[in-house]
Amino acid sequence: MYPKLFIPGPTHVRKEILEAQAVPMIGHRTPEYSKLQLEVTPKLQQLLYTQQRVYLYASSSTGVMEGSIRQASTGKPILFTVCGAFSQRWYEIGLQNGVPSEKIEVPWGQAITPEMVDEALSRKEYDAITITMNETSTGVMNPVQEIAALVREKYPDVLILVDAVSCMAGVKIEFDAWGLDVCFAGVQKCFALPPGLTVCAVSDRARERAKQVKYPGHYFAYAQMDKRYEKGQTPATPAISLIQALNKQMDDILAEGLENRWRRHQEMAAIVQDWARKYFALYADERYLSPTVTNITNTRGISVEGLNQELRKRGAIISNGYGDLKEKCFRIAHMGDLTVEDIHWLLEQINDILGL
Amino acid sequence: MYPKLFIPGPTHVRKEILEAQAVPMIGHRTPEYSKLQLEVTPKLQQLLYTQQRVYLYASSSTGVMEGSIRQASTGKPILFTVCGAFSQRWYEIGLQNGVPSEKIEVPWGQAITPEMVDEALSRKEYDAITITMNETSTGVMNPVQEIAALVREKYPDVLILVDAVSCMAGVKIEFDAWGLDVCFAGVQKCFALPPGLTVCAVSDRARERAKQVKYPGHYFAYAQMDKRYEKGQTPATPAISLIQALNKQMDDILAEGLENRWRRHQEMAAIVQDWARKYFALYADERYLSPTVTNITNTRGISVEGLNQELRKRGAIISNGYGDLKEKCFRIAHMGDLTVEDIHWLLEQINDILGL
Repeated sequence: MYPKLFIPGPTHVRKEILEAQAVPMIGHRTPEYSKLQLEVTPKLQQLLYTQQRVYLYASSSTGVMEGSIRQASTGKPILFTVCGAFSQRWYEIGLQNGVPSEKIEVPWGQAITPEMVDEALSRKEYDAITITMNETSTGVMNPVQEIAALVREKYPDVLILVDAVSCMAGVKIEFDAWGLDVCFAGVQKCFALPPGLTVCAVSDRARERAKQVKYPGHYFAYAQMDKRYEKGQTPATPAISLIQALNKQMDDILAEGLENRWRRHQEMAAIVQDWARKYFALYADERYLSPTVTNITNTRGISVEGLNQELRKRGAIISNGYGDLKEKCFRIAHMGDLTVEDIHWLLEQINDILGL
Repeated sequence: MYPKLFIPGPTHVRKEILEAQAVPMIGHRTPEYSKLQLEVTPKLQQLLYTQQRVYLYASSSTGVMEGSIRQASTGKPILFTVCGAFSQRWYEIGLQNGVPSEKIEVPWGQAITPEMVDEALSRKEYDAITITMNETSTGVMNPVQEIAALVREKYPDVLILVDAVSCMAGVKIEFDAWGLDVCFAGVQKCFALPPGLTVCAVSDRARERAKQVKYPGHYFAYAQMDKRYEKGQTPATPAISLIQALNKQMDDILAEGLENRWRRHQEMAAIVQDWARKYFALYADERYLSPTVTNITNTRGISVEGLNQELRKRGAIISNGYGDLKEKCFRIAHMGDLTVEDIHWLLEQINDILGL
């Protein structure tokens, strides 16, 4: 009845993780809750290679996208780098909040490069730059480390805000070493948890900047999160059952080993990419292929919806192309707790259905 | 190990509800999800006696408090009615968002009356009024129906925004008949679910108003929620496992019968109130006692923390007084799926511990 999800979020959640939500309810002002948050936070810091703060928001990542720009803007514009639907949405969120918003843009399937960012930042002063690390709509992974190195060196006052929604916990993100300022992700993708919780690392620099913002808002405000952070609590009621599941999952992630986890994602991606090159074509620039979701150009003119209907009968679903790419592309996610064996099985099913 | 929660949220969650979260994950753009949302929404409309829209936000209610005022303000001030910590917080959220914010205030333990509201609204033009229906910090329930009747009659353009956080699903709220515009609650209180999800009814009038707001924001914007509302979907990824639990719980709530549910809360409240009058004193104005949480003045000078430690050993916890009322008061919540038997048992334990 329930198909296994090879879609770019929510992705497949293991039974043990689903059940980890069902721990009896605890009060968010009790020692039991503080213990939970103080247990899970260092595990997240380890995952993100950071000594700085990691917040847990009861929210989808879209809310944290909004909070991140509201707390970065002291009056200078924010530079949004746009390479697909989700990076474009971030820009629109800027407009809807009255944040001075400008964008640079590449065609879908292409990546943002350090050179483009350099060119834009050299023209005027910006408060911050946004980067969508893994553009879920196109299957492109932007070179965040290289962009960050450039910004940190040449434009030290520009904050670097990174949407890592569909790649955090699937690829290595060295928050401190790269010099990032904000990096967030919903847990329903590479964390392989049910949705409703967003993990967000914030640098001390970004927390200082937020103090200079006249109207930083409330719910996503770092200043609010900081009020009880050291006590292991959140200002509003946290998503307790999801945090219970996150704590269990972080143990499993660390038991797998971070380097093993990154390698598994690379392996799954390579299998799907090779298959796509053989039977179809890759939509994204070969130099910037995502290790967590592959966007495949429908060169054979198959019915993507028809394929998915057949896959459903066999117990799985993939994603159609995003927006205008519907039926022109299809997407296979290889993230979270999916395995190389899962991916082989999926591709065999597709080959069988399409007679490849 | 896990005490039963007699605190004003999160409250006790039944095992069946905890387990309802563990349904296998579904995609939020699939027919399975649309079916879920289209199933649960009419049940919520029935609960709130409304034909208008009910949104499901992946958020604590604090986020929706913020969204509600950002979307009501076209330039005229918002009148915040303050009678305790949570109504005061709402006012502060207004300030943190640059929303023109004014307040009228009564001492803790007192209620906001239609007369006070009339006096304030008669002085100048406001975009909206906020009312904290059940002030969790003081145990006061404000007369929302009466206030709303006044506003609808004399100030028809003023939106009525109601924080029903600790009473929705515990008392009758006739959203349409009373003429409310926004009414929200997190599900960890009278819904007796794990936290992380907020239910929010919004009138057509409030949705129209939001269209006139220059910077309504994004994540909590009704315009965003409306994009896929009729299809049974949310713009960002919803808190799927919590909505699965909500759907199960709404079936149980409707099976209990709404009038029975309201009556059970009144019965539990009456038992606690009588006990408090006998052994201690009620903190809140007798005319406005909350049916979901009772704030008890510590006239005997007991150690509230000590009492709670003893209660813990017996498998329950209550709440200390809020903020400055710590040790001066204590609070017993009687909401959600707690029963008259639970309340009798709790009071017997307290009597036994204190030798009353």
